Amino acid sequence: MAITVQNILDKLMEPVGKIPNTVDTLKSGDPNMEVKGITTSFMPTHYVIHQSIKMGANLLITHEGLFYSHMDNTETLKSDPVYNEKRRLIDESGIAIYRFHDYWHRYQPDGIMVGLIQALGWQPYVDENQPAATILTVPVMTVREIAEYVKNRLGIKFVRVTGDLSTPCTRIGLLAGYRGGGDLSIPLFEKENLDLIISGEGPEWETPEYVRDAVYQGKQKAFIVLGHAESEEPGMKYLSEWMKTIFPSIPIHFVPEKQTFQVI
Amino acid sequence: MAITVQNILDKLMEPVGKIPNTVDTLKSGDPNMEVKGITTSFMPTHYVIHQSIKMGANLLITHEGLFYSHMDNTETLKSDPVYNEKRRLIDESGIAIYRFHDYWHRYQPDGIMVGLIQALGWQPYVDENQPAATILTVPVMTVREIAEYVKNRLGIKFVRVTGDLSTPCTRIGLLAGYRGGGDLSIPLFEKENLDLIISGEGPEWETPEYVRDAVYQGKQKAFIVLGHAESEEPGMKYLSEWMKTIFPSIPIHFVPEKQTFQVI
Repeated sequence: MAITVQNILDKLMEPVGKIPNTVDTLKSGDPNMEVKGITTSFMPTHYVIHQSIKMGANLLITHEGLFYSHMDNTETLKSDPVYNEKRRLIDESGIAIYRFHDYWHRYQPDGIMVGLIQALGWQPYVDENQPAATILTVPVMTVREIAEYVKNRLGIKFVRVTGDLSTPCTRIGLLAGYRGGGDLSIPLFEKENLDLIISGEGPEWETPEYVRDAVYQGKQKAFIVLGHAESEEPGMKYLSEWMKTIFPSIPIHFVPEKQTFQVI
Repeated sequence: MAITVQNILDKLMEPVGKIPNTVDTLKSGDPNMEVKGITTSFMPTHYVIHQSIKMGANLLITHEGLFYSHMDNTETLKSDPVYNEKRRLIDESGIAIYRFHDYWHRYQPDGIMVGLIQALGWQPYVDENQPAATILTVPVMTVREIAEYVKNRLGIKFVRVTGDLSTPCTRIGLLAGYRGGGDLSIPLFEKENLDLIISGEGPEWETPEYVRDAVYQGKQKAFIVLGHAESEEPGMKYLSEWMKTIFPSIPIHFVPEKQTFQVI
């Protein structure tokens, strides 16, 4: 029996129930189209869409939005040549693109965090999965050792660090995506007795400045910023693997991207 | 005649007029206190406050807030040891701390941008000072050359770059602070025919991803992220120099900080 785009979406939303006002909508394509192949990615870049089409997929499931805006605000882009060239590729190919962001984060545990923790090989060290953070107790390493370990496991070229690289760490708070801000991160240091927070992205004037003050006061705290994509891409790779067990008849592939930034 | 904290604040606000609902308030200290010395800084870190006191200043003028929050939300920090130790230093010293953010940005031209452009030595290349961005036409350099030049001029150890390092650039949009987001930055590429945007900070899923798509489509666009502090600190150094001409009787010094992050 043919499996449609809508069948896939229904199955993905099923464990969570309906979320009102979600950004997780079908951004392009026909929900009644039969799915021939699926790709997953963190960011639906022009390259990722192009690759998905070349691989024979007609459903791309991504974590972030198509046009550089969480809320799909394309008002200022109508006459933009980058927007229009990408729009044309999507429309001419007919590819269905579904954003799977809010639902995946609401899985229990959060699908993005499951993928990140698996990629880090830290499953044995998880103490608690909180809604926005995972608390871990790892064998003691210095901040520098953890930074190198994380880079190596995630295959990324750099991370940004605040704090003393020689600080020994065992209690870690891990927050993927845009959860590195002060409201979510700072209280964890005290509440969970953390040595280190590892996050995806957050405002530079919040958590890093808290850690800078803590260090100046002689307190051993540190903060590692992976990058937003770097922290969430493993969760979208994990999605592709998990979906293969649910839809064994459909070819499903993860499409990786290069790091958005390089450091000079 | 004694110059009070309030006298200084009034003088600084004068060219702009009253801004309603501003974050620019006196965060600590007595407005009627006689000013013995002034320091300026980008971020009022524990170190900066400590240095200011040691230098004999009793008024610190900073661009960002005291406690890791743009809106001074300290609700979750009441029992935090880092917060309390910093709070104690401020209260016991009696130092006045004034945030000069919204007003300085509303100077014409924006005081932060004046300082940044001076630090870069790019005054001859300014085409237009817009409210949120300055548009420049510089002698042609590659993205890599500009990145190295900017690092050298600002005395910073790294910048993050999206795009091809060999792309030649002459049309540049410069946006200090948290103005690197898509709403402000992306339309400038087309409207101002820019090769490159240099910004302080912004969401990673917005402008960098636009530039990534542009490059994949064969368009020569690039994006350099200086860091928030790195882009605005020169404007607070410039403030100290400018204030010396207005208050020649008061010792005024700029207090620099190290880069918040290091790259590993």
